[in-house]
Amino acid sequence: MSTETQARDTIFIGKKPLMAYVTSTLIQLANIPTVSIKARGMSIGRAVDVAQIIVRKTEHAGFSIGDIIIDSEALESKDGKMRNVSTIEIVVKRNTA
Amino acid sequence: MSTETQARDTIFIGKKPLMAYVTSTLIQLANIPTVSIKARGMSIGRAVDVAQIIVRKTEHAGFSIGDIIIDSEALESKDGKMRNVSTIEIVVKRNTA
Repeated sequence: MSTETQARDTIFIGKKPLMAYVTSTLIQLANIPTVSIKARGMSIGRAVDVAQIIVRKTEHAGFSIGDIIIDSEALESKDGKMRNVSTIEIVVKRNTA
Repeated sequence: MSTETQARDTIFIGKKPLMAYVTSTLIQLANIPTVSIKARGMSIGRAVDVAQIIVRKTEHAGFSIGDIIIDSEALESKDGKMRNVSTIEIVVKRNTA
């Protein structure tokens, strides 16, 4: 808990180029066996893209998709109303040899 | 197999208003216990929205999310190149009382 250089186990998908998230996720997976890719709203499709790129490109190195959780969060929009936004969490894990 | 009015067990998410897919899915779920909501590319986020609306709005009637499968498909784009597009399949099921 007090480790300064602790590996993050969650990658949040935003507006950066897709490969930036692929790289971040692969770097984390070099250190820890499972990483969660999280996104909400418009970024959900991109989270699936990131997970698929990792699994496809590393077919032999061996990462695979674990649990996929979908949910929704209440967020306050600019007009002050509460809106529900869908979320996704995709677990990518290193295959055990 | 020869039933003419067979219930479709798959709803493909496209460009219609979100609630059109919610309605279609609920109609199918009145007839059969599980329905798959499928989408690809840009529509993936909308598939998650449809599933979440159904599960949230029918909290007491009782539908829940089953398996979620992500994959990718090779599609030929307009310039003749093959491109991979991500896909999602979300199973929504009637809760057994």
